[in-house]
Amino acid sequence: MKKYGYGVDIGGTTCKIGLFETNGTILEKWEIPTNTQEAGKSILSDVAESLKKNMKERGISKEELEGIGVGLPGPVRIDGIVPVCVNLGWKNVHVSKEMEALMDNIPVKAANDANVAALGEMWQGGGKGCANVVLVTLGTGVGGGIIVNGEIVSGSNGAGGEIGHITVNPHEEIFCNCGRKGCLEQYASATGIKRLAKERLATEHETSVLDEDEEISAKTVFDAYKRGDKTAVEIVDKFARILGNTLSNIACVADPEVFVIGGGVSKAGDPLLEAVKKYYCQAAFSSCTDTRFALASLGNDAGMYGCVKLILE
Amino acid sequence: MKKYGYGVDIGGTTCKIGLFETNGTILEKWEIPTNTQEAGKSILSDVAESLKKNMKERGISKEELEGIGVGLPGPVRIDGIVPVCVNLGWKNVHVSKEMEALMDNIPVKAANDANVAALGEMWQGGGKGCANVVLVTLGTGVGGGIIVNGEIVSGSNGAGGEIGHITVNPHEEIFCNCGRKGCLEQYASATGIKRLAKERLATEHETSVLDEDEEISAKTVFDAYKRGDKTAVEIVDKFARILGNTLSNIACVADPEVFVIGGGVSKAGDPLLEAVKKYYCQAAFSSCTDTRFALASLGNDAGMYGCVKLILE
Repeated sequence: MKKYGYGVDIGGTTCKIGLFETNGTILEKWEIPTNTQEAGKSILSDVAESLKKNMKERGISKEELEGIGVGLPGPVRIDGIVPVCVNLGWKNVHVSKEMEALMDNIPVKAANDANVAALGEMWQGGGKGCANVVLVTLGTGVGGGIIVNGEIVSGSNGAGGEIGHITVNPHEEIFCNCGRKGCLEQYASATGIKRLAKERLATEHETSVLDEDEEISAKTVFDAYKRGDKTAVEIVDKFARILGNTLSNIACVADPEVFVIGGGVSKAGDPLLEAVKKYYCQAAFSSCTDTRFALASLGNDAGMYGCVKLILE
Repeated sequence: MKKYGYGVDIGGTTCKIGLFETNGTILEKWEIPTNTQEAGKSILSDVAESLKKNMKERGISKEELEGIGVGLPGPVRIDGIVPVCVNLGWKNVHVSKEMEALMDNIPVKAANDANVAALGEMWQGGGKGCANVVLVTLGTGVGGGIIVNGEIVSGSNGAGGEIGHITVNPHEEIFCNCGRKGCLEQYASATGIKRLAKERLATEHETSVLDEDEEISAKTVFDAYKRGDKTAVEIVDKFARILGNTLSNIACVADPEVFVIGGGVSKAGDPLLEAVKKYYCQAAFSSCTDTRFALASLGNDAGMYGCVKLILE
């Protein structure tokens, strides 16, 4: 194993870049803007330029680099091609091949950003020490990543770990962003919790601290929940039941050692974990009731960590 | 790669044994009784004796054997130990270690029977040519196996692929064999289809060929379905909707290239596949709508095939 590796998490606005030791220590991180103009044609060369500059500054030679891992907001096919990546403007980009050509043949691997985040949390985050991890990211939407035997389950269509689009309510009448109805994301994301809260408050007769909350959000709901507000308890209970039940079904497929919960909503911390775990345990298949729950611990750096882990395999 | 391998699928009544070429050709298969007396202590030595006899008869030397794969009706932990196997009477049996000692150190690998069946169907059956396969076994119960990148997802508690116990109806009042309520198995197994039929017939006002069917079964329901019996169409539609919807959720986790449908119920053949696929496509996440459906083709031999594939990895 060589000493260093770079993790490059390419997003629609910025590319987050980290220099790591291959033992998992992050030495330095920085960001460069993502230039999506002209079908994003300069993104990889901008990254390459930034990496070369860092290598020069640090005096790191090609021989000391294990490789470069790249995460991006779209599916990466088994043959390495990104068929389409809307946020970057890409069509049919062979990331590893192009990046290797730009980087003097230093080995490059690429994967989906949600999946590399799961790999990062497995390696150095909430799932450290485990080889079978499900990451659930509760943000604006619900994302996820499945790690089995230490490897990403990317799926044959790049839809491995798309757990936000598991159907949890066949009777839902409002559309999900994906064009279907009743997806987990419609209830367990920040947006979903806000919706659950508004629906509950519209039928509420008791007083609640949320009544006077004009900017209701997942955060204000969880804050009220922690203070014991009865309405907030009902809202969080509904969220936790839907998410806990869904995770119990995922356990019948992937049976992970740990569910790692991340994303903005997870800032609610242990009370959120406890609520979800309660419903999970009630619903889970008997062999899976002891599965652990942990908070993600790498925040927005999870993707960079996972990118580095990707090249260590 | 050496020339031969043995696949040994140990069941509660018989052990099915096959001699294979490592290219996937089966040369011979036979069965021996499973002796579960005295906590099943003679099972492995009985198998070893039978294998040695076959090696002698065929003139196969240890050096020509790639190894022996063993499937059994219980979970196998990552450390190789079978903590408990009710059908064989076993507790804390280290199958590969004990079998290697009995077989002059020929390499042995062991795995759960439903999982090796999935591996077998991937290798030489309905999923041939694919590395990402979900096997759904519709028998007395509903079993399954998940193959990702050519490897079994056994899960951290041996519950990987326990798709029969995904909760599909939280309002169910009748208990599943697992002690919970609303499992897929309660609707999509042979027993489940029979129940759906009886419930439907109890509320039926139109005449149906099933009215005079005293021994109603999944087979008679599908036979009537193929003849266009209106009531049977409704029963099969309900079964297909529940199974198709569940598989669409599994696709958001594992995203296989193909769903392989096996077990006794799958003898209904292509009309069953078509019915399930229709509901799957309606429910599936957009990237997964083209996932293939195939019938299992190895029948009761799938486990033996998978056992051999196990040792080729």
